[in-house]
Amino acid sequence: MSEPLRIGMLGYRFMGKAHANALARLPMFFPEAPATERDVLIGRDEEALADATETLGFDRYVTDWEAVVDEVDVLYNLGPNNVHPDPSIAALEAGTHVFCEKPLAHSLEAAERMRDAAASSEGTAGVAFNYRFVPAIRYAKELVSLGELGHIYHVRGRYLQDWLADPSAEWSWRNDAETAGSGALGDLGAHTLDLTRFLLEDVAGEIEELSGQLHTFVEERPAGDETRPVTVDDAYAAQARFENGAMGVFEATRNATGSKNDHSIEINGSEGSLRFSLERLNELEVLRPDGRGYETVLVTDESDPYIERWWPPGHIIGWEHTFVHENYEFLTAAADTSTFEPSFADGYRVQVLLDAVERSAERGEWVTV
Amino acid sequence: MSEPLRIGMLGYRFMGKAHANALARLPMFFPEAPATERDVLIGRDEEALADATETLGFDRYVTDWEAVVDEVDVLYNLGPNNVHPDPSIAALEAGTHVFCEKPLAHSLEAAERMRDAAASSEGTAGVAFNYRFVPAIRYAKELVSLGELGHIYHVRGRYLQDWLADPSAEWSWRNDAETAGSGALGDLGAHTLDLTRFLLEDVAGEIEELSGQLHTFVEERPAGDETRPVTVDDAYAAQARFENGAMGVFEATRNATGSKNDHSIEINGSEGSLRFSLERLNELEVLRPDGRGYETVLVTDESDPYIERWWPPGHIIGWEHTFVHENYEFLTAAADTSTFEPSFADGYRVQVLLDAVERSAERGEWVTV
Amino acid sequence: MSEPLRIGMLGYRFMGKAHANALARLPMFFPEAPATERDVLIGRDEEALADATETLGFDRYVTDWEAVVDEVDVLYNLGPNNVHPDPSIAALEAGTHVFCEKPLAHSLEAAERMRDAAASSEGTAGVAFNYRFVPAIRYAKELVSLGELGHIYHVRGRYLQDWLADPSAEWSWRNDAETAGSGALGDLGAHTLDLTRFLLEDVAGEIEELSGQLHTFVEERPAGDETRPVTVDDAYAAQARFENGAMGVFEATRNATGSKNDHSIEINGSEGSLRFSLERLNELEVLRPDGRGYETVLVTDESDPYIERWWPPGHIIGWEHTFVHENYEFLTAAADTSTFEPSFADGYRVQVLLDAVERSAERGEWVTV
Amino acid sequence: MSEPLRIGMLGYRFMGKAHANALARLPMFFPEAPATERDVLIGRDEEALADATETLGFDRYVTDWEAVVDEVDVLYNLGPNNVHPDPSIAALEAGTHVFCEKPLAHSLEAAERMRDAAASSEGTAGVAFNYRFVPAIRYAKELVSLGELGHIYHVRGRYLQDWLADPSAEWSWRNDAETAGSGALGDLGAHTLDLTRFLLEDVAGEIEELSGQLHTFVEERPAGDETRPVTVDDAYAAQARFENGAMGVFEATRNATGSKNDHSIEINGSEGSLRFSLERLNELEVLRPDGRGYETVLVTDESDPYIERWWPPGHIIGWEHTFVHENYEFLTAAADTSTFEPSFADGYRVQVLLDAVERSAERGEWVTV
Repeated sequence: MSEPLRIGMLGYRFMGKAHANALARLPMFFPEAPATERDVLIGRDEEALADATETLGFDRYVTDWEAVVDEVDVLYNLGPNNVHPDPSIAALEAGTHVFCEKPLAHSLEAAERMRDAAASSEGTAGVAFNYRFVPAIRYAKELVSLGELGHIYHVRGRYLQDWLADPSAEWSWRNDAETAGSGALGDLGAHTLDLTRFLLEDVAGEIEELSGQLHTFVEERPAGDETRPVTVDDAYAAQARFENGAMGVFEATRNATGSKNDHSIEINGSEGSLRFSLERLNELEVLRPDGRGYETVLVTDESDPYIERWWPPGHIIGWEHTFVHENYEFLTAAADTSTFEPSFADGYRVQVLLDAVERSAERGEWVTV
Repeated sequence: MSEPLRIGMLGYRFMGKAHANALARLPMFFPEAPATERDVLIGRDEEALADATETLGFDRYVTDWEAVVDEVDVLYNLGPNNVHPDPSIAALEAGTHVFCEKPLAHSLEAAERMRDAAASSEGTAGVAFNYRFVPAIRYAKELVSLGELGHIYHVRGRYLQDWLADPSAEWSWRNDAETAGSGALGDLGAHTLDLTRFLLEDVAGEIEELSGQLHTFVEERPAGDETRPVTVDDAYAAQARFENGAMGVFEATRNATGSKNDHSIEINGSEGSLRFSLERLNELEVLRPDGRGYETVLVTDESDPYIERWWPPGHIIGWEHTFVHENYEFLTAAADTSTFEPSFADGYRVQVLLDAVERSAERGEWVTV
Repeated sequence: MSEPLRIGMLGYRFMGKAHANALARLPMFFPEAPATERDVLIGRDEEALADATETLGFDRYVTDWEAVVDEVDVLYNLGPNNVHPDPSIAALEAGTHVFCEKPLAHSLEAAERMRDAAASSEGTAGVAFNYRFVPAIRYAKELVSLGELGHIYHVRGRYLQDWLADPSAEWSWRNDAETAGSGALGDLGAHTLDLTRFLLEDVAGEIEELSGQLHTFVEERPAGDETRPVTVDDAYAAQARFENGAMGVFEATRNATGSKNDHSIEINGSEGSLRFSLERLNELEVLRPDGRGYETVLVTDESDPYIERWWPPGHIIGWEHTFVHENYEFLTAAADTSTFEPSFADGYRVQVLLDAVERSAERGEWVTV
Repeated sequence: MSEPLRIGMLGYRFMGKAHANALARLPMFFPEAPATERDVLIGRDEEALADATETLGFDRYVTDWEAVVDEVDVLYNLGPNNVHPDPSIAALEAGTHVFCEKPLAHSLEAAERMRDAAASSEGTAGVAFNYRFVPAIRYAKELVSLGELGHIYHVRGRYLQDWLADPSAEWSWRNDAETAGSGALGDLGAHTLDLTRFLLEDVAGEIEELSGQLHTFVEERPAGDETRPVTVDDAYAAQARFENGAMGVFEATRNATGSKNDHSIEINGSEGSLRFSLERLNELEVLRPDGRGYETVLVTDESDPYIERWWPPGHIIGWEHTFVHENYEFLTAAADTSTFEPSFADGYRVQVLLDAVERSAERGEWVTV
């Protein structure tokens, strides 16, 4: 048996916990996955870092990523968006595999550099668009690829959250353009746009043109005793035309009072249709050719993607399982030094779309992607 | 008791049946409504007209509307969109009340003339946007007006049908620009835009700017032995900004395989939210201030709008009941020579929006309304 | 053309309005239905009767049913349950057709006499179990009859209302054993048991044995200034075994806070399953052979039972439409002096089941039906 | 820090994996939980056992439970129902804590002995009714305890699966009376009855009387080249009366084609109602006092039971998380040698109900519990 892959993880909060948990669960559920060693946690706040190192099961921590990017086998880059480029590029240049959270970067220019670094590295580079790894989404992709939907006419994608609906909700780095790049657009919209590409690229092609809109409903927010300006969007919307002529309508917001995490995708084709919502991620609604209505499929059968690793039919999985699946796939690819999808090229393509939405919103006109 | 209002009805198919049925039902359920006499049916195909005259309970028919617009008390104008202007204007000039199907006209110019004719007529003029008369929508309006939603952030409106998803579906006047003006935009989108105005005009103001998109998926369709060109859109989409800063996302299509008549509206405010779908028109989903989730309200209580006229709680009403309600309101207004909403001015305002979508789609940029 | 059928209608409140409306709507939507004349309304309270005669469109009224049962062509018996037997039997003996509300009677003995009177009459006799005439239920029956469900294992039927959940809700005749026979059992349970027979008699046979339970939660209720005893059940439950071995579970209550009119039926077979709920009566959920989940079918296509008479796909019908359908079928049968289903024999069979539930509840043991 | 609790686990398939996973996840998500050592796995098939020992992360395995029940600190008894009594009693007599899968035993007599052994042991004894640990169920319990439902009128509990709907599905120990005690009744019904007690014991009291029914639809099933008799029920149904007069209707089946794991509970009170379904276990439908309809609450807020340990609002958890919660609570109780609920006394009470259903079904009459 080969040596375990040494993991360095930059970031230890929400995403750190999600990925560390995924690593911890692989041996029991995906025993053929490459062995890993949670070697080093990377951060800035030493006290919080020390705590997290213990809780998340790492051997040690450092506050300087430069010290370790060439020591570890895999760098998990889970920092704020503007921290994605430098450590990822340095790691890739050192031949270290890099698994980077989404969106790929805070700017198109940075994303381009990252894509190029990945292209010339021996390391495997992947973007953690975890919703590609929902079993119901994989099943949807199968149906689309089998041509069950016929010619694609429409796609609708929206991501509704409400944690900023209250004007007195606290400021965070996610409200800051310099750190995050954009707001709901990059945080939520990136997911939708990636998922759309995953599901439709083979049958509808890429988005060729789009028209976008950004809005900031609450322009400053409390941060301790002071207030800070919100320099990103609270919500975006966009319309798009795909290569095959299909129409796309997209939206994301953090101000949809009553929706916690409603990431929904709908696709209509000449023969069939699909509907998915993340809050019921074990289900896929399928309008089959010659069907009379949407069939609510509980995608938890043994034959469904990844499900045999888990529990019997009807024993639903949760949001976090998508991280186990993507970590399994990424680490397997890394151990083989083969490629992983979504790649940095995929991440870059999404960044092109994010950028196009911003450009379009600025100019008030459609832009060619 | 006063004389019954003599009704002249132009159009005797789908809409003719819906309005004739409404007239027939008023005496039993709204006994205080003005009495009516189904006097004359107006059309071109004499044979079909004779049949319809009997089935719909009219006294007689004519093939020439000019002969009767000043004889009757009320003209129901239910013809194709390009037949709306001339008879309506002639009737209004004669002081005849006019109840006109939506959209008001096939062009902005015609709509403007109609609005002006209504303004200077002694007759009452109304547009038959029947969805304003769904009890659940009236209840929604009450909640909005009471401020239950707080500051309005978002509105989403979409109207999904699928009768043109099959490329071999037959051509009809609804596919012809000259007759219909536009396709899904004017037929379905007009409903959504009117409903949005009805629900939000007091709290979010009008749409100030929008960016639209039109698409024709199937460019010609069979018409008997030949094919004819489709000169209108199969689908439209639009984004909008309201006076108060709210974002709107709109869409309608006749190609959404699996959806028959899914007209859905969602509104998110800082305090609450609403969701409605026409296929379940007795229900309203309400996120109340401090609520933890959407409450599915069956709007069939005795205290709900119009419901005491019908059946006990939980005994649902159908689509056609909206016509009974709007006929009751329109005829009551006409008998009093008072005003009715939606008026021709309201219809004109929707036409301005339809026109703005078309202009924006043509230019590929946002337009000010 | 033959003479219109003269209608005598006993009862003019909720059910009177539902049937009078149905009669009024037939000419426009079912023009081949026999013509009818709303001849005479029968009741006791002369003032209310005079009002209803006008509103419901009758020519005259009488307070003595005996005076008219042999004058009219059809007697609609819509009175309280204990008023079903005598007028119905008298009418049938006079050769008058009788359409009687459900349950057939207030006691098994009376139901037996009614069944016998029908058997020896030249008049057509029918019981107004209107839910057999919901298009979605007709469609369900087709699927069952085609064998799409395979061997039937389970049926679940429940009818949940909440108008007596509040202990201070007013006493009415429906709370009185002498008048109503039973409470939720006869009022709501009769519907469920009839619907079950309609859907399953061909494939699962009749109920052979059952075990029942009755409960009165609130033992007296206000009636003006006094209180009166509630002498019927607020709720019943029953378990059953069908001829083919299938298991049935039934329940009805007027105390299910939050449910207004939730009459639900579920059937599971070896190959497929069905689910229906009255509050969404345009829909049927179908688990097809080899299906992966329930398909939500909007039973409003032109090819669906009765639908072509009404509106295009997705334009939903309401509760009252079931009365139009059953009146069409009943009057057609009466005009032909042929038979109608559900017949008085069907009504009697339901009464046998109601009686069995009561006997079982009394004895605390299973009873053979 | 104290020594880790040494775990002996009897059973290593479905339930073994569920509990081993729970143990493995505690340190990261419930860091204050007692430390554990997965010491020894107990089974009969040495080869499968060796594999599972590695996969599930145990140090060793034995094929003889007697050898280890006094060596370990905690015995997880996850064997077939008839293997619950002896090892559990031996362990409790040795002062070892015992966490036993449900139902407590295969017979009432055995359950009684187990309850008594627990009562006189120093070890903590618990039954793994995991559905008590669903956050939505905990939230439901809070609402009930706060009196939000008022006086309880009705409870409905059903558990629908379909893995035996196909008559050619394989025989297993779950079809054998000697091993399992009963079929759907003990496997699924036990969950429903425990959950009902958990939610309602404080407000409606215990079930006092019930009437039950059992049915075996398929009387023999293939087992390799032969067939074996099915000696347990495929389905049960029961009606019940609670101390406070509430009515209960219960059902479970393995033959509900189309339902994988639909464990649903509904409660109606004079003021409010609740609905829950396991296939959407993150949701609770709540009819609040003065509410107009059921509110669909996504029970994933930080303030909801156990949720702050996991992910942000709307990031749903899965079925397996219930095992983490119950292991946390059980191990915490064991480390403190305090009591855990559901206790063996609770498990015994459920067994009394299971036995009452069987007695009632046999006799065809209601039985007092």
